[in-house]
Amino acid sequence: MSLIVQKFGGSSVADAEKIKHVARRVIECANDGNQVCVVVSAMGDTTDELIDLANSVTDTPRGREMDILLSAGERISMSLLALAINDMGGKAKSFTGFQAGISTDSKHGEARIFDIKPERIKEVLEQGEVAIIAGFQGFDATVKDVTTLGRGGSDTTAVAMAAALNADLCEIYTDVDGVYTADPRVVPRAHRVFEIDIDSMLELASSGAKILHTRAVEFARRHQVDLQVRSTFSQDPGTYVYSKKRDDMEEPIVSGVATDDTQSKITVIGVPDIPGKAGEIFSVVSEAGANIDMIVQNVSTTEDHLSDISFTLPHSDRAKVVQALKDQQSELGFAQVTYDDEIGKLSVVGAGMKTHPGVSAKLFRALARANVNIEMISTSEIRISVVTRASQLKEATRIVHSAFELDAEQTAVVYAGTGR
Amino acid sequence: MSLIVQKFGGSSVADAEKIKHVARRVIECANDGNQVCVVVSAMGDTTDELIDLANSVTDTPRGREMDILLSAGERISMSLLALAINDMGGKAKSFTGFQAGISTDSKHGEARIFDIKPERIKEVLEQGEVAIIAGFQGFDATVKDVTTLGRGGSDTTAVAMAAALNADLCEIYTDVDGVYTADPRVVPRAHRVFEIDIDSMLELASSGAKILHTRAVEFARRHQVDLQVRSTFSQDPGTYVYSKKRDDMEEPIVSGVATDDTQSKITVIGVPDIPGKAGEIFSVVSEAGANIDMIVQNVSTTEDHLSDISFTLPHSDRAKVVQALKDQQSELGFAQVTYDDEIGKLSVVGAGMKTHPGVSAKLFRALARANVNIEMISTSEIRISVVTRASQLKEATRIVHSAFELDAEQTAVVYAGTGR
Repeated sequence: MSLIVQKFGGSSVADAEKIKHVARRVIECANDGNQVCVVVSAMGDTTDELIDLANSVTDTPRGREMDILLSAGERISMSLLALAINDMGGKAKSFTGFQAGISTDSKHGEARIFDIKPERIKEVLEQGEVAIIAGFQGFDATVKDVTTLGRGGSDTTAVAMAAALNADLCEIYTDVDGVYTADPRVVPRAHRVFEIDIDSMLELASSGAKILHTRAVEFARRHQVDLQVRSTFSQDPGTYVYSKKRDDMEEPIVSGVATDDTQSKITVIGVPDIPGKAGEIFSVVSEAGANIDMIVQNVSTTEDHLSDISFTLPHSDRAKVVQALKDQQSELGFAQVTYDDEIGKLSVVGAGMKTHPGVSAKLFRALARANVNIEMISTSEIRISVVTRASQLKEATRIVHSAFELDAEQTAVVYAGTGR
Repeated sequence: MSLIVQKFGGSSVADAEKIKHVARRVIECANDGNQVCVVVSAMGDTTDELIDLANSVTDTPRGREMDILLSAGERISMSLLALAINDMGGKAKSFTGFQAGISTDSKHGEARIFDIKPERIKEVLEQGEVAIIAGFQGFDATVKDVTTLGRGGSDTTAVAMAAALNADLCEIYTDVDGVYTADPRVVPRAHRVFEIDIDSMLELASSGAKILHTRAVEFARRHQVDLQVRSTFSQDPGTYVYSKKRDDMEEPIVSGVATDDTQSKITVIGVPDIPGKAGEIFSVVSEAGANIDMIVQNVSTTEDHLSDISFTLPHSDRAKVVQALKDQQSELGFAQVTYDDEIGKLSVVGAGMKTHPGVSAKLFRALARANVNIEMISTSEIRISVVTRASQLKEATRIVHSAFELDAEQTAVVYAGTGR
């Protein structure tokens, strides 16, 4: 008997018919002799509708009250799914984040899980019933208030619950049938990856592939939770993401190509080339509350000992960081700050890369042949990312996908983004 | 400084604009130097929409899961109201039934409150903040599951919280401006009652006046909670319902006329006139799960020693009770069971009645003059109820209203029913 955690996103439970479909899938899994714990998101657009309501009564929809409001969405979907399963002859009970023992810090809107005490869930599973848990929510352990986990929250709930229950597998059901070598809307010849290691999945997720949220993948990696990404609406096995070490598998050199056009580039020009200056600049950036991604420093070769520092960050953080830097311009002593919202990032990811030299050379040659200029480069052991013009990103992705021989013989189905 | 509990029904918080209006009223009350605890129902039709969703996934929408589902409605309205108050410069926190310490028995869908430990509410009030509580919900103390209180649940939450907090007053805000001497849709000359004692209010509520739920009034009576029934959308003081004994007031002979056309009459014909037979019949009725209201037994004067027993009960219980009686006909030994769905009940209520003889005589004379036949009669110390034809109920109400000199000089505004 296996213990399986199944996560269904908002599009999978968008209406009564879809909830009944999910109920049948859950019952099938239980009838196959598994213990089943289900994590659900809010139905379809429920969360957006609640946000709209909040925006219509306040200009500052956040904090404790906003979290209580948003948590209502998952309570509705989880209880409806339990009612549907019970109606079909299955046995299910639903639990809020609090009832499931998911405690977090007190950072409303983006709380981090710090402990799970799933006693009630274990009890229900041992009695042979299905446990359904509201995704995206927990509770602040100190004051017993509802918290929400922010973007990717339901994926994170599922993976964290799988870790806490020591589950054999965490299945992520969505409206696409697995992880692809690239976004099929950009690269029609992208093909599905049947197996991928968690390190590569993490690099893909954090490089812009939207199928799984980075935070959930990090959690799975840290706690060695195997994932299966698959479609709610087919029996296809999807993509298996293995976190536990396996020796029986040859790792592919490159698993996929991810793209991200949601970043901006900021360049600080004429920075005095003295020790500690970069540290001062990034302290200002960090205090402005921005998460930066790539950094490049061009050390000056002229006699004036000035260098330029460029970095990328989400569009939404750009204005406040530029302002923060301008406010500190005289203290920091740089000449000028510029920004560029029209950049695109392309990443090649693969666990086999670290033992196969020449991957970066092949990438740069392919881009050069296509006249794509590389503006920034950053690398990890299993990833190479380059920044180009946003307008060239799609073309560059198709070229790189071909160069690494990832093209399928047939055109892939087009897939859409996933919910939270 | 007074401590005031304010309850706002579903029509008072039906949309964002109305929620903002309620927020302003709450802030006004707090700015007048009061400690304010607010109880809210779900927005407008939210509860009905959730019930529709449940009906679309199951034929048996009840129990634990149904209660979790329905409780989402009040979570949404309470957090939106808190956001609105905070946006306007007030300070408010919202609390679920669980967080407010409202524990109940485990009867899902119609749980009874058995204890309130409002520690968090007291703390918030003492800090000068407004405490907002989800109406209609509590938690099963043994297993920490969400329960709902059934019809009139939010009124009951408000009154119970007022008792637990030892509040000075419980204000029930609704879409009508108070308690009337009769339903103004039936009796255009009905006038508003400015003050009424809780005993009369209880008789009015249980005789069909829909403005307050019987259960909430019973709670207020038992715990001596003074109520004020008033409109959300005007500054009018409405009707003051006093539960604490007052000596400074002359009690009116008759406070109002209530009507109820939602009952059926069942008559069991030819019941053997031997001791214990009525007890057997009403055991069968009770086991069928019906609440009966009036009972009349006509002892037979013929030699066959058979009597007839008539009683009234809600339309919705009639079919199952008739069936239960037929199933037991041979054991009970009666001749026949008949029913009548076309009855109407009229009640005259007033605390002064007990010290003023002749009220019933005046009532019967008025009905006789109008050719209204009386089919059943029941009385309490402060109420006389009669059953007539449903088709004659409105006319009878107007006649009785006039006979007791309740008619206002001007036509009353028409009022509508209230939410839960």
